[in-house]
This record gives sequence, structure tokens and C-alpha cells, in this order.
Amino acid sequence: MNIVLFEPDEVGVPLPRSDRRVEHVLKVLRRGVGEPFDAGVINGTRGKAEIRELTETRATFAYVPATTPPVTEPITVVVGLPRPQTARDILRDATTLGIAALHFVRTERGDASYAQSTLWSSGEWRRHAIAGAEQAFETTVPAISCGKRLPDVLDAVCTADPNEAQIRIALDNYEAPLALSQIPFLTETNVLLAVGPERGWSSEERAMFRTRGFQLAHLGTRVLRTETAVLAAVTLARSKLGLM
Amino acid sequence: MNIVLFEPDEVGVPLPRSDRRVEHVLKVLRRGVGEPFDAGVINGTRGKAEIRELTETRATFAYVPATTPPVTEPITVVVGLPRPQTARDILRDATTLGIAALHFVRTERGDASYAQSTLWSSGEWRRHAIAGAEQAFETTVPAISCGKRLPDVLDAVCTADPNEAQIRIALDNYEAPLALSQIPFLTETNVLLAVGPERGWSSEERAMFRTRGFQLAHLGTRVLRTETAVLAAVTLARSKLGLM
Repeated sequence: MNIVLFEPDEVGVPLPRSDRRVEHVLKVLRRGVGEPFDAGVINGTRGKAEIRELTETRATFAYVPATTPPVTEPITVVVGLPRPQTARDILRDATTLGIAALHFVRTERGDASYAQSTLWSSGEWRRHAIAGAEQAFETTVPAISCGKRLPDVLDAVCTADPNEAQIRIALDNYEAPLALSQIPFLTETNVLLAVGPERGWSSEERAMFRTRGFQLAHLGTRVLRTETAVLAAVTLARSKLGLM
Repeated sequence: MNIVLFEPDEVGVPLPRSDRRVEHVLKVLRRGVGEPFDAGVINGTRGKAEIRELTETRATFAYVPATTPPVTEPITVVVGLPRPQTARDILRDATTLGIAALHFVRTERGDASYAQSTLWSSGEWRRHAIAGAEQAFETTVPAISCGKRLPDVLDAVCTADPNEAQIRIALDNYEAPLALSQIPFLTETNVLLAVGPERGWSSEERAMFRTRGFQLAHLGTRVLRTETAVLAAVTLARSKLGLM
């Protein structure tokens, strides 16, 4: 945790002593009342916080912003619903790299039962994304969904406005004519990256992508784990956008 | 495991039934005697193997190569010795992406005690690298070292031959004047990538890099975990070399 992040409605409100941020500030950062540390508000400003009041059961933080809120990240990732441990890694590491939204979708060859994991029903998923932002020393936590159908998510994330530039890329090991790294990018554009489930896209899904103006692209001949493919694709997209 | 890999001296030799590859072939691939599956020899050819003889305690495989051995990968990675779990992830995932060598080095600000982990003393490290190659559907397993001093490794990996092109890059969050993605690459070149320990390089280490012709480069403003930085740097280097 390189920065301590609060939800917008948590600033100035007493938090339980057992809260992981209270524990972190007291035990890892070793900050007492009135001693400042790096903090931020999720999807808002960064600045300095300090403990204002500390009782046996609660801690209340004061926070002073020092930056303006971040601009929206340009990359949206759509990924075939993976097993929960893979989803945890993607939630954390893709957030660290910097993305606007992350949609784990049901696909024809995916295993829909993964959506039943307690990762999703308990709200645990959000903790991993916040941990990714805390690692990055940034406040940006992506919008996240799980278990929607691929076409519904594509309809929602494809820009309707013809004046808004949007590059759409679906990774595909089988039918992609070129490498993601060879696709030219404008720097002022939004990017949609779709990464299939372990067993790949169906032909109907490939047709959905083509109809919606996606290019099929690969990441070379080596077969990557889903989480590695997501990180590699986001890395290449960010570097093409001049962000990395 | 997308391909079953054998050491060069294991082909045609009986392996115990408890060997993880015997278990995988019988239980996951469900192949009996004489039924072929994808296999390869570490740093050698790929082809087809089948069980030739199966007893209650042993299995003997026959193997027929179908490719030539792989060419040497152009990227060598030097990384400040990380905690064992981070090292496991790097061993597996950097091998999947494709590298020639991976050196976990002692640095001034690193924790040398990580070299005492059973990961290194038990030989477990090699299993993670092999798993990375099995994921990639490739036979290339990098040369690996752990616990050597940074200057000794740099002396060994920097090419002495002035006719051999070698790009040398050390990632640095503090003093790097430009992003790794902005560094021009020749496609026919070897690449040395150095990634610091969690607490970064010392000024003496930065001087060592500069003396040896390394460029200091960053991966943007976001603070990445060591394993994410390694994957991002290898991804960018491979894409600049036209390999991804």
C-alpha cells in the first residue's frame, strides 16, 4: 500500500479500529494522532491525511487534498469470466496499470459458474481493485461488472458518437491477422480491449466483434495465461497512447 | 500445461508413476499406451510423445520431434532479489513471455535473506520456469541464477564484442529521463533489462549502470509491483523487437 485510499463518504467519519487502513496507518506506517501520511479519495484527489481522533474502538481521519481529481483513463477491458484467482490478479494488476473499466463477461466457451464465486457475491472483488490503485500511488479505481453477457457489454461500451475516436481490439490466438503491437493508435483515443476466456471465442462471438468494428489481434505465438494477456495488452495499449 | 516437457536425458527412460507429467498424461490428458500428445524437450524440439510402457510404478515415453530447436531468445532480465512469492511469479510468467536468462541479484537496498528461501535451496525454482514454458507451448526455459552480486552479473551479461548490438536498460522510478517505450530498438539486437528491488537502486548502482552503457528508463508515473514491472518491460521489449 503506497497510498491510503478512502471512499468519498469516509473522510472525516469515524472508522473502526479493525479497518485495514487504520491498522496500516498505526502498525505499518507507525503514524500517531496528527502525523501526516499520503492519502487519497477513490477516483478523486490525492493529498495528506492524519488521524485526528483515536479511541479504543475508532479512528477519525482528517484529509487535505493536494491535487485535482484524475482524468478518466482511456482503456476499457472486457474479459471472458475467468476462475476467481485469475480474476483477483486481473482486478489488482490491471487497476495498477491504469484502466477506466473492467467487465468480466459470460461467453459461449466460458464457465458461467465462476460468477457464483464469493469473490463476486461478498464484494471482495472491490478490495482487489482498490489494492491495485494503492499500489499504483493513484486514486483511480475502474468501474467493474461481472456476469453480464458479452453482447450486452459490447453494446454498452462501444461509443455511439461517430466523432469520438475508439480503437476496438479483440485478442484472438486463432484468426487474428496481425499483432496488437502493429495496430496504429491515435494518441487521443479511447481503447476497448477484449480478452477471451481460456477456451477462446466462438465463431458467433468473432462475428459480433467484427460487426462492431473490432480488429482481431494476437500477442505473438506463445500461449499466455489470461492474466498475462490482459497485462501485456494493457501495457502495449498504454505505451501506444504515450502513457507508459 | 499446454505441452509436456522432458529434460533431454529423460526421453526413453522410465519415470516414476508419481512424476507430475505421468500424472498429467494419464489423468488430465487421459492418454493410454500408444496415444500421442504434444510434447517437447527443454530448450530443444517440439513433437509428439506417447506412453510406450506402463507398469504399476513406472511409465516410459517415446518421443518423435517435429520441429527444429528454438533460436535463442534475445532478452536477458536482471532483477533485484524479491520475496519468494514474487520470484515464483516472475520465473513462470517471464518464461511464458520468452526470455534467454533471468538473474535474481543481490543489491544494496534489497533483502539478501530472500536468497535463503527453500525456493532456491530445494530446486523448486526450476519447476516454475518449466511451468512457464509449458504454458507458452514452447520449450525455451531461461538460464537462471540467484544470489550473485549485481556487478558480477552485469560483467557477465554485458557483451564485450563491439560488433554485437546490445540495448541495455535499467528501470528506475527516480532518475530516468525517458520512458522505456520511447527508446528506439534495432530489431536485430540483444536486450538487457534490469529491474530494481522494491526499494530501488542505490546511487552506486545507478553509477554502475551508467558506466556500462545502460539507459535509465521508466514505465510511466504509476508505481508497479516488481512482477508487473518485469512483465511490462519484457512485453514492451518483445513488441519493439517484432516478437509480439
